[in-house]
Amino acid sequence: MKKEKLILVTNDDGITSPGIRTLIEAVQPLGKVVVVAPDSPQSGKGHAITLGFPLRLSEVKIFDGIEAWTCSGTPVDCVKLARDKILDRTPDLCVSGINHGANHSINIIYSGTMSAAMEAAIEGIPSVGFSYLNYSYDADMSTCKQVAEIVTKKMLGTVLPPHTLFNVNIPDVDANQYKGIRMSRQANAKWVEEFDERRDPTGKKYYWLTGEFKNQDTGEDTDVWALENGYTSIVPVQFDLTDYRLKKKLEAEWSF
Amino acid sequence: MKKEKLILVTNDDGITSPGIRTLIEAVQPLGKVVVVAPDSPQSGKGHAITLGFPLRLSEVKIFDGIEAWTCSGTPVDCVKLARDKILDRTPDLCVSGINHGANHSINIIYSGTMSAAMEAAIEGIPSVGFSYLNYSYDADMSTCKQVAEIVTKKMLGTVLPPHTLFNVNIPDVDANQYKGIRMSRQANAKWVEEFDERRDPTGKKYYWLTGEFKNQDTGEDTDVWALENGYTSIVPVQFDLTDYRLKKKLEAEWSF
Repeated sequence: MKKEKLILVTNDDGITSPGIRTLIEAVQPLGKVVVVAPDSPQSGKGHAITLGFPLRLSEVKIFDGIEAWTCSGTPVDCVKLARDKILDRTPDLCVSGINHGANHSINIIYSGTMSAAMEAAIEGIPSVGFSYLNYSYDADMSTCKQVAEIVTKKMLGTVLPPHTLFNVNIPDVDANQYKGIRMSRQANAKWVEEFDERRDPTGKKYYWLTGEFKNQDTGEDTDVWALENGYTSIVPVQFDLTDYRLKKKLEAEWSF
Repeated sequence: MKKEKLILVTNDDGITSPGIRTLIEAVQPLGKVVVVAPDSPQSGKGHAITLGFPLRLSEVKIFDGIEAWTCSGTPVDCVKLARDKILDRTPDLCVSGINHGANHSINIIYSGTMSAAMEAAIEGIPSVGFSYLNYSYDADMSTCKQVAEIVTKKMLGTVLPPHTLFNVNIPDVDANQYKGIRMSRQANAKWVEEFDERRDPTGKKYYWLTGEFKNQDTGEDTDVWALENGYTSIVPVQFDLTDYRLKKKLEAEWSF
């Protein structure tokens, strides 16, 4: 008899966010689900890990019939602790999200949602992060749930290369304008920051991060294009950051 | 008359670490140096940014004749704040480090040192992170200083593609065993975690991250190989994480 699929669920918005509840509902029919998620919001934490401080785990009963734990660390810490201290075998899949807000293009680098999924992929667990282009906790997540069902079923039903990782972003459009799922590449984009400078009651300056997103990519095969045109984008992601083209060029041109 | 080169210096070990002092000494003869570094250790912070909390900047006089600022945030915050609030023009180069400890292979993803340099590269500033395979703050950094001089001079003297970024790791070997600088690729490696489980005075469990590094890559062109064989490794780095091979494969095989 085949063993039931084991699915690790995590996120970066914290265990009480509506997004993780939607994701649990989407994957629950596909196997045994274990949730290990941050006990507080961890947005923008990137691939941070906790060094120099110890971590806590607490079992919580907030999802009907689902084993769930909060972790005091970052999203990446959640995955590491789940592997070492909670799960008794390697999961068949790790799903992260559903994030309240976009993680397309360069945002993948800052995203705790995607870093958690990447950490699992580094471990050899096929993984996927889901993000919804709507920051409201009251947003209707029914399209997100459908997308999570479709993608996770596809992943569990396919023999995937080791370290497979997907970045899935769902557009914020009405159901009748939604066009489906489109394989995409990461758009070349960045944030232009303008920190909001204020003064505290003692007169000292402090700064709030604000910024404007700039898409520098005119391609019609990017995640940003897909989202702007009513598609869910799915970007296959890898974590060998070597720039092989520049390496080859400089090997020929540079000597030390 | 040509404008003096502007060089932004940052790190993740904090502004008082010996590594950043060595790096400042290495680049000071090459242009105008401005330092913006964390006010406390930020190792392992990856590409984290500070959301939901404001940031502070304080000018400090700890390096002779050098403008220097501490920032209360992450290494990436330092670079963002430097660009927006401190520097009056785009720097010609951003250097990060010298990190006390290795950032080869997969460590690039967890490294605050490399994330700071990557943030600058995203902004279009040629950047480089330096790391030394020795965690001791008392270590002799003379080889590191030489490497930083050689690489930064090379970078400032070359027209580099936009977003150029290098990950430079210096081996911990005696001068007579040191073999020079070698262009490398990121080794396929990972950490196998084993959290150290303890109990606090009230009897509740807590966990310390510990781990063992596993190199899964037998190639002789990797950063790990270079370091093990007495070379400084220099890896050209990019931040388009799209897995183009898997994208092509799945575009042919998958339909949604």
